[in-house]
Amino acid sequence: MGVRMSVRPARGLFVTFEGIDGCGKTTQAVLTYQYLSGHDHQVKLLREPGSTRTAERIRKILLDRRLTIEPATELLLYEAARAEITSREIVPFLAQGKVILCDRFYDSTTAYQGYGRKMDIRMVRSLHRVAVGDLKPDLTMLLDIDPGLALSRLGNHRDRLEAQSRAFFDRVRRGFLEIARKERRRVKVIDASQSVEDIFSDIRKILARRIEIT
Amino acid sequence: MGVRMSVRPARGLFVTFEGIDGCGKTTQAVLTYQYLSGHDHQVKLLREPGSTRTAERIRKILLDRRLTIEPATELLLYEAARAEITSREIVPFLAQGKVILCDRFYDSTTAYQGYGRKMDIRMVRSLHRVAVGDLKPDLTMLLDIDPGLALSRLGNHRDRLEAQSRAFFDRVRRGFLEIARKERRRVKVIDASQSVEDIFSDIRKILARRIEIT
Repeated sequence: MGVRMSVRPARGLFVTFEGIDGCGKTTQAVLTYQYLSGHDHQVKLLREPGSTRTAERIRKILLDRRLTIEPATELLLYEAARAEITSREIVPFLAQGKVILCDRFYDSTTAYQGYGRKMDIRMVRSLHRVAVGDLKPDLTMLLDIDPGLALSRLGNHRDRLEAQSRAFFDRVRRGFLEIARKERRRVKVIDASQSVEDIFSDIRKILARRIEIT
Repeated sequence: MGVRMSVRPARGLFVTFEGIDGCGKTTQAVLTYQYLSGHDHQVKLLREPGSTRTAERIRKILLDRRLTIEPATELLLYEAARAEITSREIVPFLAQGKVILCDRFYDSTTAYQGYGRKMDIRMVRSLHRVAVGDLKPDLTMLLDIDPGLALSRLGNHRDRLEAQSRAFFDRVRRGFLEIARKERRRVKVIDASQSVEDIFSDIRKILARRIEIT
């Protein structure tokens, strides 16, 4: 651990936070942002979909509960927003040596649209390439939790996507775990049924193996 | 799980109108709509991007001159709007035996994003499949015109896309002609430097070979 075998030019660190709705990843991304900022790192916190003006417009369509959206449309809209944030923010920030924290990235699309909506996984992955080229997170914090517990945390404040069935979220969770199993070095599974403090303690330990924290 | 129909049932006729901005295809699509409606055909006139509520929201993003949009985002947004119109309108209308007239379809994306913006054509075509599956227009009216003449028709009323350079539109036109050369049976090239009446006369003749007009 610690030495990156890579032919890529020197660049920052790209960390994504993934998991089903209600897993607590947004809270943990914010805590991580505060922690690294407080330890002299240049950090940017982004969210998906969104973060650029165009991507926020796309986000509004995706989260609008009054709209009906075809599965293929939904998939393509996520990738469209991702293409924006990748070209305009992630790639330039990484080139400046910054640490990028992203609340969701392509693993969410693989898990939600691929596993959750049962779309063809290879096709979904081919769209990731259209959107992000060969960019890949250096580290992914997968906050794993039972969907029943996660949904109970959300209460009644659910958007269009969160108003899915329990079976759907079970498939999405399995999808995330499948991704983690295939990419053990990149994707770290964290028990998100723990307290906020304990989850963050796990995240700190994982980060410490990849980045110097003074 | 549903059973996929592998054999297509008897269906209506799917006609698309293509060409660079200012070629007159919208006028001709409307004339064709009036003509076929007046001859006892069940006709639907659609436009791309748009026609459903979600797709019109996507259209607004695409045509908003105040927004900067990455090329990959633009491509994915067109395909997202296309997936909507295909599933919600074109496929069900065709199944009802209607004639569908569509102002632009995937050839526009091949020509504008592929040839115009020089994106990988195979990748662009693979996105068409994500958006429309194996749906294909039965007949495409390609209104071919010199970009200089077409742009002069538009005057100052140009949206974000139309404010492109002349060289761009030259590439788009060549792209459309290349598509027509490869699919002669489907794509009919019409001289759009003619008068509105003469263009429509050509269209009527082409239609008469594919559809009974009483």
